Amino acid sequence: MTVLRCLLRSGAYHDSVVLMRLQAALAELPGVADAAVVMGTEANRELLAASGLLPEEAAGARPEDLLVVVKAENAAAAEEALGRVDPLLAARAAAAADGGFRPRTLSSAVQLLPEARWVLVSVPGRHAAAVAHEALGLGRHVFLYSDNVPLDAEVALKRAARQRGLLMMGPDCGTAIVGGVGFGFANRVRRGSVGLIGASGTGLQTVACRVHELGAGVSQALGTGGRDLAAEVGGATALQALDLLARDEATRAIVLVSKPPDPSVVARLLMAAGRAGKEVVCCFLGLPLPMRRLGNVHFTAGLDEAAEKAVELALAGDEPHGGGRRGDGTAVREEPRPAAAPGFLRALFAGGTLAYEALLALRPLLTPLHSNLSLAGVLPLSDLGRSRGHTVLDLGDDELTVGRPHPMLDNALRLRRLRQEAADPEVGAILLDVVLGEGAHPDPAAELAPAIAEARTAAAGEGRELEVIVLLVGSDEDPQGLARQAAAFGGAGARVVRTIAQAVERWWILEIGRRPGEAAAAGSDAASVPLADLDGPPAAINVGLESFHASLLAQGAAAVQVDWRPPAGGDERLAALLARMRT
Amino acid sequence: MTVLRCLLRSGAYHDSVVLMRLQAALAELPGVADAAVVMGTEANRELLAASGLLPEEAAGARPEDLLVVVKAENAAAAEEALGRVDPLLAARAAAAADGGFRPRTLSSAVQLLPEARWVLVSVPGRHAAAVAHEALGLGRHVFLYSDNVPLDAEVALKRAARQRGLLMMGPDCGTAIVGGVGFGFANRVRRGSVGLIGASGTGLQTVACRVHELGAGVSQALGTGGRDLAAEVGGATALQALDLLARDEATRAIVLVSKPPDPSVVARLLMAAGRAGKEVVCCFLGLPLPMRRLGNVHFTAGLDEAAEKAVELALAGDEPHGGGRRGDGTAVREEPRPAAAPGFLRALFAGGTLAYEALLALRPLLTPLHSNLSLAGVLPLSDLGRSRGHTVLDLGDDELTVGRPHPMLDNALRLRRLRQEAADPEVGAILLDVVLGEGAHPDPAAELAPAIAEARTAAAGEGRELEVIVLLVGSDEDPQGLARQAAAFGGAGARVVRTIAQAVERWWILEIGRRPGEAAAAGSDAASVPLADLDGPPAAINVGLESFHASLLAQGAAAVQVDWRPPAGGDERLAALLARMRT
Repeated sequence: MTVLRCLLRSGAYHDSVVLMRLQAALAELPGVADAAVVMGTEANRELLAASGLLPEEAAGARPEDLLVVVKAENAAAAEEALGRVDPLLAARAAAAADGGFRPRTLSSAVQLLPEARWVLVSVPGRHAAAVAHEALGLGRHVFLYSDNVPLDAEVALKRAARQRGLLMMGPDCGTAIVGGVGFGFANRVRRGSVGLIGASGTGLQTVACRVHELGAGVSQALGTGGRDLAAEVGGATALQALDLLARDEATRAIVLVSKPPDPSVVARLLMAAGRAGKEVVCCFLGLPLPMRRLGNVHFTAGLDEAAEKAVELALAGDEPHGGGRRGDGTAVREEPRPAAAPGFLRALFAGGTLAYEALLALRPLLTPLHSNLSLAGVLPLSDLGRSRGHTVLDLGDDELTVGRPHPMLDNALRLRRLRQEAADPEVGAILLDVVLGEGAHPDPAAELAPAIAEARTAAAGEGRELEVIVLLVGSDEDPQGLARQAAAFGGAGARVVRTIAQAVERWWILEIGRRPGEAAAAGSDAASVPLADLDGPPAAINVGLESFHASLLAQGAAAVQVDWRPPAGGDERLAALLARMRT
Repeated sequence: MTVLRCLLRSGAYHDSVVLMRLQAALAELPGVADAAVVMGTEANRELLAASGLLPEEAAGARPEDLLVVVKAENAAAAEEALGRVDPLLAARAAAAADGGFRPRTLSSAVQLLPEARWVLVSVPGRHAAAVAHEALGLGRHVFLYSDNVPLDAEVALKRAARQRGLLMMGPDCGTAIVGGVGFGFANRVRRGSVGLIGASGTGLQTVACRVHELGAGVSQALGTGGRDLAAEVGGATALQALDLLARDEATRAIVLVSKPPDPSVVARLLMAAGRAGKEVVCCFLGLPLPMRRLGNVHFTAGLDEAAEKAVELALAGDEPHGGGRRGDGTAVREEPRPAAAPGFLRALFAGGTLAYEALLALRPLLTPLHSNLSLAGVLPLSDLGRSRGHTVLDLGDDELTVGRPHPMLDNALRLRRLRQEAADPEVGAILLDVVLGEGAHPDPAAELAPAIAEARTAAAGEGRELEVIVLLVGSDEDPQGLARQAAAFGGAGARVVRTIAQAVERWWILEIGRRPGEAAAAGSDAASVPLADLDGPPAAINVGLESFHASLLAQGAAAVQVDWRPPAGGDERLAALLARMRT
């Protein structure tokens, strides 16, 4: 018959690695079957309860209480174990102090190691934002490992960082490699020409490992925190990181890894990536993109593929023939066009699947996007007869084909719509699909090409340049004559493409050329982050997990550990009172 | 000043292509600015109104009414044009009759062309199911082009077809190529070794064209209708088509194209694809999959990529070295294992992004799937302490890390959970990630490997085989020793993999080996579709659009056109009354 005993320490602060080691030490004592050492949060108490490790007297523990539970063979063994808790913690504290003088505050740490440009913060989440703000105030970049930091605190921190030209990685940033030194969780990989940006910790680590395994190396790996690509945060850190790595000569290819970002944020990121002047590989997990690349921006479905693509691109730059023509990004900037605000895209599809594929491809580029097809992140079109903003229309929609032939057979509906869209001064481009073959219209170009030429001429007469893109699907044996159709559309001034990816790329290139201002990396109030701060090995100040300090030293970085304690000894009410008195 | 005049014909039936040609003829008459000839549905009336082509007297038109509108320079020209409507329609009917004798019923058409194994149906949607049922009753395969057929009618049609060993393509099936002859909309492509299945018309056409452009060819292209992969229909036609093409010796690689299918249907399709014994390329537009292949099943993000992959695989079979080892499908069947129902998978992740990537990869394979990560199609886990069915857990979840170290640092939580899952008799496999590097646990295998060995031994003692898969992320320079960690996990009986794709593939292979029965192509009541019916050129009966009949003849197929008329002359109430009297 085992017994369960516990011990509560109010307001006691020890970092979580210290607690983990205490737990391991207790579990190894004679007669002890199991032990748990955790802060008394509700989640932890539930986990303990599920493991049969929550005695009744521990049920009332508060989040700021240290809770030690021991399951032992008998009462004596349990009491003996609990009696060891304080001596074990004291021994640990003494061992830590052996490392030399430890400043109590961040500002004294900065005086001790003034060359430190980086502050690592891993204190409990409720204290983390205050420490990070202090670090930014001292002009230091922040690597904020702590999670459970409120969203509005993240927004405020990133705004402050951006204005000062500082990088704010996190909160909940698990990993970074700066100047060859890993912050937080980081694999030891060789240095090289692949730069990494990740709104994802293990995603970034997986890509770094695979790059290394393939024989290439990492220039810098910059974490952003998992929420950076949420709409509220707007990709603030990712945009700064993109700007940094675009300027960094050691970086030849950039990888951007994230769980699915907010659509508006993807659009901004892709715009910035398109202007980076080097190859960028995007791995947006969970965002289905039907194309593999747009100019210099490449898309991969998984993490490993992202690493493989980046290595291929980075190494291609080493080959003599690749030197001059590496960046398609260059090509992108070579095609400017007259500004034509707002230049909406109207896509008028006969083929439902083609419309759907186009919608998937355009969704991350054009926000807001409207359609009569249903897709998350795309706004429904209430009135089929009137387009709104950017619109993708499936004219083969069941509702539209009752009592009339399919638009692949009958161009009447599309001809009408083409004229209507072309007459709209807000329209910059029209995309049409033309599907040849048996059963389809015997000569679509005979009807559509003159209408296209007419529309373009009319727009030009109003001083507008109207781009018409024709996606031509057919085989060279089709009765309509593939080459003849292509020539007719080309003759009418349309750009003929053969795949959705080509159609979307064409539009994207126009869009980048047209909106130079909006692609600015990190907002109009942003100061540039100095590239020199990424040189390594960096000097850093660590506030929080002692194991991170040890890791910095082991990697050859100069580092100072702050002997941080929660304000007011962990008493939350007193701390709040003190904070209010200070303001 | 233009005038608008209209003409209504109640209960008049003409196929939509005939109406389109009438409209074109009217629009070319002198003094006519525009013309519209449509059935009087609400959608059509709205479209006319949007184009300024809906006179007041046309507002009350019913769906079964033919509505002819003319916009002319003056009243005389308008009246003149409307006066031509009946003569033009009569001339058209006379021209059609020139083609020879046309049976009035499907059964007399079958007597006229008994070798016809296929019936093409393109009558208006509200009449389509009845015609298709009649064709199935006569033992013929159906290509049902009509849209606006109710879902329950589709389910009933497909059930009837399956039981009779017939293929029911559609409703809303735009395209097929059977024995080298295109049905409906189809491109002329060379015959070859790529077989196509599509719940998508223009998707199938795009892939066929690209296959042809790459110098390869199409064995058969089988449409299923856009709703076939909805949960209610369950992929009935796609599963039959997969079974057919798997048996077809001329088909070396199969492409399956669809807009995002229902998760339960994807799981069945992938299971069937995995057992096809040949390479299968899946392009599920809009379904983000983080892996490129599972055994013999390949995944692509876009239509063009699907065609390219299929051609690569089909041609690889032609090369001498590829002959013996083409299908990974073979390997799949070589690894049977003892049945262990239900054999749930429990994935216990320390890395959030790895957990998310696994969830994306497993979602189409395991339904239902539970997780504490939020993803469409994945069920939330109400109690974090208890897994349900197949479960993917992110143990680095903010909620779980308050006041305790991250699970990459501290194995305590995972050790507990590993034991808990292993003791569950319903669990067949456990997946763990182990991330090495700076900041992580100094020797994860020292703690986890013994627990894995213990769990496997305990399960074996109960007669269960417990598979443990360890996803090991790290570099060979990491302090924990990549090779040493891998060896320790391997020594404990775990399967060590390096990517999520490998982990998922391992699980999938086990699952296929374990569930031989469930992968049956098309349900237990299914009769097999005879392969010989795909031989070409096929003979076919066409009911509906005359242009389809002409296309069949032009392609060298024997074809009979049925002179179909709506029941009761198009009077819906009378037709309903007659139908009721017949039953």
